[in-house]
Amino acid sequence: MSRVYNFAAGPAVLPEEVLREAAAEMLDYQGTGMSVMEMSHRSKAFEGIIKDAEASLRDLMNIPDNYKVLFLQGGGSQQFAMIPMNLMKNKVADYIKTGQWSKKAIAEAKIYGKVNVIASSEDKNFTYIPDLKNLKISEDADYVYICHNETVHGIKYNDIPETGNKILVADMSSDILSEPVDVTKYGLIFAGVQKNIGPAGVVVVIIREDLLTDDVLPGTPTMFGYKIHADNGSLYNTPPAYGIYICGKVFKLVQKLGGLEAMKKKNEEKAAILYDYLDSSSIFKGTVVKKDRSLMNVPFVTGSDELDAKFVKESKAAGFENLKGHRSVGGMRASIYNAMPIEGVKALVDFMKKFEEQNK
Amino acid sequence: MSRVYNFAAGPAVLPEEVLREAAAEMLDYQGTGMSVMEMSHRSKAFEGIIKDAEASLRDLMNIPDNYKVLFLQGGGSQQFAMIPMNLMKNKVADYIKTGQWSKKAIAEAKIYGKVNVIASSEDKNFTYIPDLKNLKISEDADYVYICHNETVHGIKYNDIPETGNKILVADMSSDILSEPVDVTKYGLIFAGVQKNIGPAGVVVVIIREDLLTDDVLPGTPTMFGYKIHADNGSLYNTPPAYGIYICGKVFKLVQKLGGLEAMKKKNEEKAAILYDYLDSSSIFKGTVVKKDRSLMNVPFVTGSDELDAKFVKESKAAGFENLKGHRSVGGMRASIYNAMPIEGVKALVDFMKKFEEQNK
Repeated sequence: MSRVYNFAAGPAVLPEEVLREAAAEMLDYQGTGMSVMEMSHRSKAFEGIIKDAEASLRDLMNIPDNYKVLFLQGGGSQQFAMIPMNLMKNKVADYIKTGQWSKKAIAEAKIYGKVNVIASSEDKNFTYIPDLKNLKISEDADYVYICHNETVHGIKYNDIPETGNKILVADMSSDILSEPVDVTKYGLIFAGVQKNIGPAGVVVVIIREDLLTDDVLPGTPTMFGYKIHADNGSLYNTPPAYGIYICGKVFKLVQKLGGLEAMKKKNEEKAAILYDYLDSSSIFKGTVVKKDRSLMNVPFVTGSDELDAKFVKESKAAGFENLKGHRSVGGMRASIYNAMPIEGVKALVDFMKKFEEQNK
Repeated sequence: MSRVYNFAAGPAVLPEEVLREAAAEMLDYQGTGMSVMEMSHRSKAFEGIIKDAEASLRDLMNIPDNYKVLFLQGGGSQQFAMIPMNLMKNKVADYIKTGQWSKKAIAEAKIYGKVNVIASSEDKNFTYIPDLKNLKISEDADYVYICHNETVHGIKYNDIPETGNKILVADMSSDILSEPVDVTKYGLIFAGVQKNIGPAGVVVVIIREDLLTDDVLPGTPTMFGYKIHADNGSLYNTPPAYGIYICGKVFKLVQKLGGLEAMKKKNEEKAAILYDYLDSSSIFKGTVVKKDRSLMNVPFVTGSDELDAKFVKESKAAGFENLKGHRSVGGMRASIYNAMPIEGVKALVDFMKKFEEQNK
């Protein structure tokens, strides 16, 4: 068995230690005589799994007691509709447009009400985070929405908008657990787990209790009510149990590794290796303004489509997987989530240096 | 490692052979150097997995070319809303009420339009399938809905309603792959996989192409459109990839074991062992009329709550898991899905006989 360095944007690399444990427990989870896949979601064993997962996440993110943690299905794409269906009481919301994922959220929210794009970086193909100082938040807005890290464009918020008494909603799919977050600044945080946590098919929602309401938009499916999932501890219906189990293992591992401060330090170190090289290279360059660079997703280009294609091909042959950039940005993208070892980033930079030598 | 006999109603027992393969491939799927959990859903390897899974299911169920096969999220509960949101053009539908799951589907459909309950077995706590001969299908109904096997109440359709030119929709969550089905009789079949196929978090939808339309109810979330998932081969957004991979393995195994005719034979044999004993027992009895008995879910009672509780406790101690009945029926329930070996049913009956001897 030989593992590759997998730079995929999501689903993405998971900690080898977690995969080994899951394999060992596949036929018999802790003496229950069954796999977690076979377990009733109403069983004591699964109750332990989901409660432990929640407790670990609460500890890691320092989630206050007046927030609920939900494990749901449908990914970020489903959240794009669930959020307005639950929160858009006045049928108005403010969105900041910073890339593909906030654009998708905006398009979906428009099904349910008026969307004010109060800031955008579309003018420069989403290579920066717009100025947040003079935001005009709409008086009648039900909430303000941001995508905290844009996976495709590789930009992240270092500061967040001051929204006063307005609910701040954030998509953290691609940077949850990468660094500490002040949960109290948000009304709702969600994250599809398939980037920095676990296998696709689970979305984590952290929601302030006062936003849980039966007063949802007419026509909201029962499965779209945050309150019903909160009231049932994410067991209103059969949850994606095996995915939650893997998430729990990852949470525990991150705790063991020192929590989110430790993750941040490691992620800054990893990202610096790659960005420093990009800044010094004569053929590669990053596509994003320095101050807004993502710690997780690093897009870069050579400026030549031919050379980009050559690099992608040769890097794959050398055991670096999924470095091809998203079609809307072109070039390359290295996603270096928590589970990417520093050795993987160093090996990539070494490979890029050799490639530069041979192609400059 | 010691495996128990797991009679859970879902999530439920999976084939040991499939779990062994999954464990062996956990860190490196077929030389890719990564787990299926870590794989981009746009990768060649995952494309192979999802296409193979679909091909196997098409072969097993003999699904005609004018039907699409979708692998979605949200389980049956989400289908209860998706179906009316896509199909209820006239805002009227006919439902047959046969137990907990059709009741839930009815409650959800009422959010979207008028529901006519055209037959029901609620008068006798859902212990039979209503007479289908003189059904009055509503002229303006957009579709007719049945739950093909009621997991909680243990009844199944042996014949299905003649719906003429009306679309027949069926929930087959708890009996898909248990016996051959004539797909051409249905407009839409769905099944949460966590009973007879795979791990919770995937729902299979088999839908006739002419029902795929952009003309959905106002306010339908993008994720609820069958057409968008069909147009994108179930990859509109990140799918529950690992679950689909396990489903594919189960499909292949069922093919190897001789397909659905072989499953039916084996399931009839297994069910007969249990039902024959129930019919002869002096303390246990089945709760369902003989002609409508499920091959998958077998509810039974002693008539005494105390004795029921004693049986559940002692059976658990003897390694028979999850035999407690659903609270709405009481007593016990043995779910004997495809993956329950005949040895498990025989062992259960032997245990019941001993229990009878000691408690009559």
